[in-house]
Amino acid sequence: MLRTNKDNMKQQIQYKINSKTKPLGSLGISELLAEQICLVQNTLHPELKNPTILVFAADHGIAQCGVSAYPAEVTSQMVLNFLNGGAAINVFCRQHHIQLKVIDAGVNFDFEPHPQLIDAKIAKGTRNFLIEKAMTAEQLQHCFAKAREIIEITYANDCNIIGFGEMGIGNTSSASMLMSALCNLPIEDCVGRGTGLDDAQLQHKLTILRQAQQNHPKPLNAQEALQFFGGFEIAQICGAMLAAYEKNMLILVDGFIATSAFLCAYHIKPEIIKNAIFCHQSDEQGHQKMLNYLNAKPILNLGMRLGEGTGCAVAYPIIQSAVNFMNEMASFESAGVSNKK
Amino acid sequence: MLRTNKDNMKQQIQYKINSKTKPLGSLGISELLAEQICLVQNTLHPELKNPTILVFAADHGIAQCGVSAYPAEVTSQMVLNFLNGGAAINVFCRQHHIQLKVIDAGVNFDFEPHPQLIDAKIAKGTRNFLIEKAMTAEQLQHCFAKAREIIEITYANDCNIIGFGEMGIGNTSSASMLMSALCNLPIEDCVGRGTGLDDAQLQHKLTILRQAQQNHPKPLNAQEALQFFGGFEIAQICGAMLAAYEKNMLILVDGFIATSAFLCAYHIKPEIIKNAIFCHQSDEQGHQKMLNYLNAKPILNLGMRLGEGTGCAVAYPIIQSAVNFMNEMASFESAGVSNKK
Repeated sequence: MLRTNKDNMKQQIQYKINSKTKPLGSLGISELLAEQICLVQNTLHPELKNPTILVFAADHGIAQCGVSAYPAEVTSQMVLNFLNGGAAINVFCRQHHIQLKVIDAGVNFDFEPHPQLIDAKIAKGTRNFLIEKAMTAEQLQHCFAKAREIIEITYANDCNIIGFGEMGIGNTSSASMLMSALCNLPIEDCVGRGTGLDDAQLQHKLTILRQAQQNHPKPLNAQEALQFFGGFEIAQICGAMLAAYEKNMLILVDGFIATSAFLCAYHIKPEIIKNAIFCHQSDEQGHQKMLNYLNAKPILNLGMRLGEGTGCAVAYPIIQSAVNFMNEMASFESAGVSNKK
Repeated sequence: MLRTNKDNMKQQIQYKINSKTKPLGSLGISELLAEQICLVQNTLHPELKNPTILVFAADHGIAQCGVSAYPAEVTSQMVLNFLNGGAAINVFCRQHHIQLKVIDAGVNFDFEPHPQLIDAKIAKGTRNFLIEKAMTAEQLQHCFAKAREIIEITYANDCNIIGFGEMGIGNTSSASMLMSALCNLPIEDCVGRGTGLDDAQLQHKLTILRQAQQNHPKPLNAQEALQFFGGFEIAQICGAMLAAYEKNMLILVDGFIATSAFLCAYHIKPEIIKNAIFCHQSDEQGHQKMLNYLNAKPILNLGMRLGEGTGCAVAYPIIQSAVNFMNEMASFESAGVSNKK
């Protein structure tokens, strides 16, 4: 039987993994990660270069409806916190020497220029999708074009592994709407407490989102879903993931909102899943079902639900461990260790 | 109501965690880790100093009964692999700047001196516990005394967080016997495939261990269980954990065998659990039940079953993340971020 080069590479990778001085399969998920990374990079000597996390921030018209536990100005305040180095994502990126950039995809605030801030503002927040489309078709195309530019720059900086985070008060509502539309699940299955709604607030959010669903036709595709429900940061992440896939980068998928962006990208380009590393399972209800839809097994389950790309950053050393064991561990033969009886 | 200083410290820790710029509780397990570490160190500014992993190695008389998928000489071969830097634990310790020492607790081999090797050999392997006690009472005391010395040295090197790994062909059999005795569980619930037994080999292992259980009285306590079933590395890890607790170190608990050593230490000194961080859930059947017995929720579940302390090493950056967010993240107040509505 003829084998393709890819089958051949897969066999060679498996052989290399199995020849390492450890019981077969005993590194669990790390072995699957090593295999995936080697396949993406088409090599037996994988390498992670200049890991970068891009945090996209934007405001949401739907926040006017009281769907979040926090006031809308927290979006801009948290962007300033990112730029001052005080947020969780700053701490974890510093720990793991991950480059961090913040993208103003559409925050309702005028920021001073800052070396870590990229201006890709589409507008000062989406429109309220309870009553109208979150963005125009032109704005969506603008999101994709800006995202592509940002990836071009990141790729030019010799980065081959990229994570995506988000900040945007109200954006779990957009993510829930996208999930419901693209996974064909009732909105009830897709709505959670976000940053910490109580029971009554959760009911209110659900009522609003159910109404919003009735106010729009069923979206025909991912692009239309993004246009209907936003947000600018989710659309830019989706576009950036697609552009990163074209550059054959490894794509780190974070929690509920980032995964909803991935879900859109996956609907546009299903092959993207080959390059996706699902970093963690969020505590936000709905994320597990979204991961199931994607048949994704995340690396971590730490009960986190913070966004910002924090799941990507915390999972990064485990991805690095997979690469390191592949490159550095001795084989049974080289170490003179007896193999299985 | 009067409050003790500890209650007061606990409140202060919780207040500090909750004032960080993130939704309440949104860092999940990391917040529990931060609280535990602050409580152990009695501070709001925790610190991990000179992290160290000690890998204890020894041979087992029971290996003669064909309970392992690998030949007994793999114990000494793997020790040499550790000293040459080629094993999984070497790779992960290098990645995270963790000091690694290897302890010959009772390997059936004469090693040349090596800067990373500590000679604490009790004998060239335990006796076969199918037919007799694995070690004498004097040998067990010797194990505890040697372990204490090693911890004294590590503590003198200003280490405050220590992980324990093991290597010893046959040692899942000892761990299963300890678990069955100390958790009061039938041996069937405690036996697994170890380094990779097939169905028939697993049945054979179970038959041997069931017979061994019949050949000994029920152990009166953890010390007697260790004496009956070994091994030297498990007894030394148990003693080292107890000594580390006396020094108020953080104790990283690895997989099935290391947890069986912790189980013994816990039976001797239940308070030790305050300092224990359970790093991962092993894929070895039985580990989940052992963790349940200890009411322990491990950090990682990566499907690993390699031993050597690899679970501790891979989990280490997540523990460091917990300390880092506590020390480095801004508060709502300091960052000027609005809190919950």
